[in-house]
Amino acid sequence: MSQPIPPGSGQHQVTTKKYTFAPRMAKTPKSFIREILKVTEDPRIISFAGGLPSPALIDVDNIAAAAASVLAKDGRTALQYSTTEGYRPLRQFIADRYRKRLGLEISPDEILITNGSQQCLDLLGKVLINKGDHIAIERPGYLGAIQAFSLYEPGFHPILLHEDGPDPAQLADCLLKFPVRFFYGIPNSQNPSGITYSEERRREIAGILEKSDALFIEDDAYGELNFAGKSLPSLRQFIPEQTIITGSFSKILAPGMRMGWVVAPPAIMEQLVIAKQASDLHSNYLCQRIAAEYLQNQNIDAHIEKIRASYRKQRDVMINCMQDLFPDTVSFTRPQGGMFIWVTLPEGISSMKIFDAAIKENVAVLPGSPFYVDGGGDNTLRINFSNSTEDKIRTGIERLASVIRKQSQS
Amino acid sequence: MSQPIPPGSGQHQVTTKKYTFAPRMAKTPKSFIREILKVTEDPRIISFAGGLPSPALIDVDNIAAAAASVLAKDGRTALQYSTTEGYRPLRQFIADRYRKRLGLEISPDEILITNGSQQCLDLLGKVLINKGDHIAIERPGYLGAIQAFSLYEPGFHPILLHEDGPDPAQLADCLLKFPVRFFYGIPNSQNPSGITYSEERRREIAGILEKSDALFIEDDAYGELNFAGKSLPSLRQFIPEQTIITGSFSKILAPGMRMGWVVAPPAIMEQLVIAKQASDLHSNYLCQRIAAEYLQNQNIDAHIEKIRASYRKQRDVMINCMQDLFPDTVSFTRPQGGMFIWVTLPEGISSMKIFDAAIKENVAVLPGSPFYVDGGGDNTLRINFSNSTEDKIRTGIERLASVIRKQSQS
Repeated sequence: MSQPIPPGSGQHQVTTKKYTFAPRMAKTPKSFIREILKVTEDPRIISFAGGLPSPALIDVDNIAAAAASVLAKDGRTALQYSTTEGYRPLRQFIADRYRKRLGLEISPDEILITNGSQQCLDLLGKVLINKGDHIAIERPGYLGAIQAFSLYEPGFHPILLHEDGPDPAQLADCLLKFPVRFFYGIPNSQNPSGITYSEERRREIAGILEKSDALFIEDDAYGELNFAGKSLPSLRQFIPEQTIITGSFSKILAPGMRMGWVVAPPAIMEQLVIAKQASDLHSNYLCQRIAAEYLQNQNIDAHIEKIRASYRKQRDVMINCMQDLFPDTVSFTRPQGGMFIWVTLPEGISSMKIFDAAIKENVAVLPGSPFYVDGGGDNTLRINFSNSTEDKIRTGIERLASVIRKQSQS
Repeated sequence: MSQPIPPGSGQHQVTTKKYTFAPRMAKTPKSFIREILKVTEDPRIISFAGGLPSPALIDVDNIAAAAASVLAKDGRTALQYSTTEGYRPLRQFIADRYRKRLGLEISPDEILITNGSQQCLDLLGKVLINKGDHIAIERPGYLGAIQAFSLYEPGFHPILLHEDGPDPAQLADCLLKFPVRFFYGIPNSQNPSGITYSEERRREIAGILEKSDALFIEDDAYGELNFAGKSLPSLRQFIPEQTIITGSFSKILAPGMRMGWVVAPPAIMEQLVIAKQASDLHSNYLCQRIAAEYLQNQNIDAHIEKIRASYRKQRDVMINCMQDLFPDTVSFTRPQGGMFIWVTLPEGISSMKIFDAAIKENVAVLPGSPFYVDGGGDNTLRINFSNSTEDKIRTGIERLASVIRKQSQS
């Protein structure tokens, strides 16, 4: 990074100034993913490290048509300041979709449009976390949430994730021992593990939360990407007043528009709107209008089915390759949806070493340890299948398998 | 606001749940402006209360052409995830413009794209303010900044604003007595007062800050809207390592795209990027690309000159009406740029009463007291001239003058 430059000189100068930052900054993990993604920008590298949707599945032409239509019909309004809550027809669309998909009755007044669902986490941190407050998170937990919440300086309680969801006894124990503000989780195709909570486990977790004052923050970025097409219930169905849902158009429409939303009971929504206004007044209104126009005129169900079919195939190819080529000592999840497979190497094999060796073979993976707030996970990897073609998946997993075999033998 | 709804019932239900919020929320003033703007949505009302650019001066056709071009040429990339720092050619454009307009040498690496300049304030709060830290702000000060910073729970030190800038003695005294983290100010056409710091006062303020560890946050939302076309120096020219600049395309391009930026020395920028990533990953990439495309192909100088000419005329009409119609006991600023005039009523006349009486006459003004962090300002008003036609300005000021005369007599 360049140095600050004295006025008018056109010359760079060495900085002498020392700055003091708020202590919260020291508590926020610098994104390891971000650093890794820089390494993987080389086009020769097959990258399973990121979390990008398939570019082929972005409906560019119809989004362009929606943009042209909005700007032609109502450009002067679409480009002006707007309300903090967001464009009401878009919020109505989201509410209608919850009714249709999950049988949830949600008012548009309970929905706030955000800059991707990542911003929901920042706003929820603002509204709910005082320094030192206790919060619970899955183990492994979503790194973006760990980063967002860390800025508000909570204490994290990791709750072990099994194949069918979070450990109920551990959650119950944690809620008993600590005044936990909320439990943050991703019930559908969790990031990073790829696991989906079973319906039974959802009821159980809801029952445990209901006996406490803790809220459930249900991050549902991947709920539409369930490959079997069967939606499992939101915890809002069981504990409506304790559940906050975050959602995103990034995985079904386009991430570059940064369109997400948060659903919260009215008393919480009132605070979220104040926090949102202080944070950036309102989300990009032009893109809200484009998204609404697109959703009104296109068949989003057909588009989502296309994404599901493609990712399902990509997952199958990857799982088959892993089954054929990985040593038996390596285990991995078989996700029902989403974008990630979670790989567990034999104890003692360092995923950082695998990362380094794999990069030399032009394949990038994501070491799992940053997803553990309490350390550990050194032998885990997150592998993305949504952003690679089937050919690249085959080639990449072949190379990765060879790297793992070599490391296992050394 | 509606109540939360039990699952599947389709019925609204009374909330029984009590929620606890982070203490910071109680310290954040709910936007009075926001409440007022709701009142003024009635199209019969002539509103001087908001801070919107003139809709007639949004270059819709050329923005639509830029959008079409970006989506046709590179839609798949423009709609994908992108880097936290922002689109480099846009950052390069901003850097080049600082060189051209202010003679400042700024590297694109020192520029981060944000969701309007409001988000800069949130990010700077995150990075710089620990609970209880001291910060200084103009008196009256920008309400959006008061709201954004309040979420990080600082102590505010208001510094009196004169016609030529902040009171130097008061600032020096404050920096001597308290370990102030930063002084936040708007040197060009300040919001709400409309005043512009003189060149002499800029040097003086910089000299005072230089002797301390305090930073200067220079909010430059209105720098391009200087009606005489003469730019006064940024404080970065005098104290480059202590100056952070925030900028915005909202006033020269379109607010609905939520495009702003922050300029900071590298060590601070590094922290801002971490905070930005945790807050929302990156700003709307599609609109960054549209803005860059527009700026590359259109003559922004000619467009800005058009805005300046129009607002200058609107200001002149408003000032002339005020001179002709307001009682002599009422004083007001004569802004050299920007969008606002600051009106001071005789002591004892409540601007809240003026607001109420004016609304009955279908004209809306903004009472000034929310701009005072330490109370006071009950006899002040912020009047916007950018969002009304000359005819509406004449009619609105006539009505307002009549309301003020009546209140002065009662």
